[in-house]
Amino acid sequence: MYPSGEALRNAVAKGDFTNQTSGQAPGYVQANLAILPKEWAWDFLLFAQRNPKPCPILEVGDVGSFLTKTIAKDANIKTMIPKYRVYLHGKLVDEPTNLEKYWQDDFVYFLIGCSFSFEQALISAGLEIRHITEGCNVPMYVTNIMCQSAGKFQASPMVVSMRPFKAQAAIKAIEVTSDYPRVHGSPVHIGDPSLIGIADLNQPDFGDAVTVNDNEIPVFWACGVTPQKAALVSKPPIMITHAPGYMFVSDISNTALK
Amino acid sequence: MYPSGEALRNAVAKGDFTNQTSGQAPGYVQANLAILPKEWAWDFLLFAQRNPKPCPILEVGDVGSFLTKTIAKDANIKTMIPKYRVYLHGKLVDEPTNLEKYWQDDFVYFLIGCSFSFEQALISAGLEIRHITEGCNVPMYVTNIMCQSAGKFQASPMVVSMRPFKAQAAIKAIEVTSDYPRVHGSPVHIGDPSLIGIADLNQPDFGDAVTVNDNEIPVFWACGVTPQKAALVSKPPIMITHAPGYMFVSDISNTALK
Repeated sequence: MYPSGEALRNAVAKGDFTNQTSGQAPGYVQANLAILPKEWAWDFLLFAQRNPKPCPILEVGDVGSFLTKTIAKDANIKTMIPKYRVYLHGKLVDEPTNLEKYWQDDFVYFLIGCSFSFEQALISAGLEIRHITEGCNVPMYVTNIMCQSAGKFQASPMVVSMRPFKAQAAIKAIEVTSDYPRVHGSPVHIGDPSLIGIADLNQPDFGDAVTVNDNEIPVFWACGVTPQKAALVSKPPIMITHAPGYMFVSDISNTALK
Repeated sequence: MYPSGEALRNAVAKGDFTNQTSGQAPGYVQANLAILPKEWAWDFLLFAQRNPKPCPILEVGDVGSFLTKTIAKDANIKTMIPKYRVYLHGKLVDEPTNLEKYWQDDFVYFLIGCSFSFEQALISAGLEIRHITEGCNVPMYVTNIMCQSAGKFQASPMVVSMRPFKAQAAIKAIEVTSDYPRVHGSPVHIGDPSLIGIADLNQPDFGDAVTVNDNEIPVFWACGVTPQKAALVSKPPIMITHAPGYMFVSDISNTALK
């Protein structure tokens, strides 16, 4: 475990830390990464503006810039994430540990809020988070809730994450996450999964199924996988993301996002 | 007075309503307008992303589109605002009542939140708003708080609006406006104006001076004039805005922005 985002990032850049970042540098905001060429970046930013719940943008770089400014001071986007994914024309082609050989002068990076931040707030509020209790990944589902289109990015389905709670805890969870609009905010749905096009909670599209007891209500939040999926469907010539679970760890505290 | 934003916009398009929109279609969100060519729109959207308090974007059009989608259904951006301002290379050249002769296929429109929405919430909370009591415009000041730059838009000073309150009312005003991040949100400063570079409250840069009593604290909110000023300093070949006070009136209620 590292005492700060900066300490963790430095360890990553030196090759001393190569694992998933969950639980490392506790209290610091972890962010999703997306990198696109300038020509595609406008549509991505517009998509985010129109779909803020699945795509809460924390920072956008200048064209060609790879040093962060806002959520971390001078962090190198090319070297300070433990594992990346490189997609060419929508196809995964590589999972490098740095971007030196892929970087282009027309790249724009986006750092996007993730649910790790609000989960810490839920735990602080005394709530049990099932996938953490069960030691697995949060279950994620493709829904029939359509995102608004933006230029090259056509209307695409929203991906949601699900956490089950009893009624009182569900109310508290809505209250708590409403305060965090920059990391997905309040849920997009509660209750009957079929109403948003989910046939079977036990068969998530990503992540792992978790126990949902009879007296529990499934609560669904917009998920940061949504914009990556929307972009990849449009097959940009190149797009780079973090590898799932290998996040960018910032200098700001989760509570600062409130 | 009109019963809805749509009724008011239709009257504007027909030439039946030609005045300032303040107090018309009560309860409906009124928005600032900015129109820029696509080439400049990216930097404007990025400026807004980096400076959300002065520049809370409510809707962005597709390139060339002049029919709104989100905050109003199919409202014509070219005809449904009573008075526009056209700037060429940063200079005001015309104040037309429609944009038929200026519209370009590469235009992107931005509708930006305005303080009318949170003022209604302040009034509902029982607060007195001085410039309304005194029947004048809100005083606005150029500060030494610098906005973050974005591409062609260099770091430029934030413009703020000021409303004075006694201590308890100031606290309430902060509480109420915190709930409205899409219309400037919580204040950027309270108290001593000199700390943000304002030499004399009695000499606002825009709008009118209001009475500030000895037992009152001036409370400063980020103002939507900021992005227009930032853009005009960079002298885009063409930029179009609403004329001050002649706003775009939407279909959504002020409380829906909460």
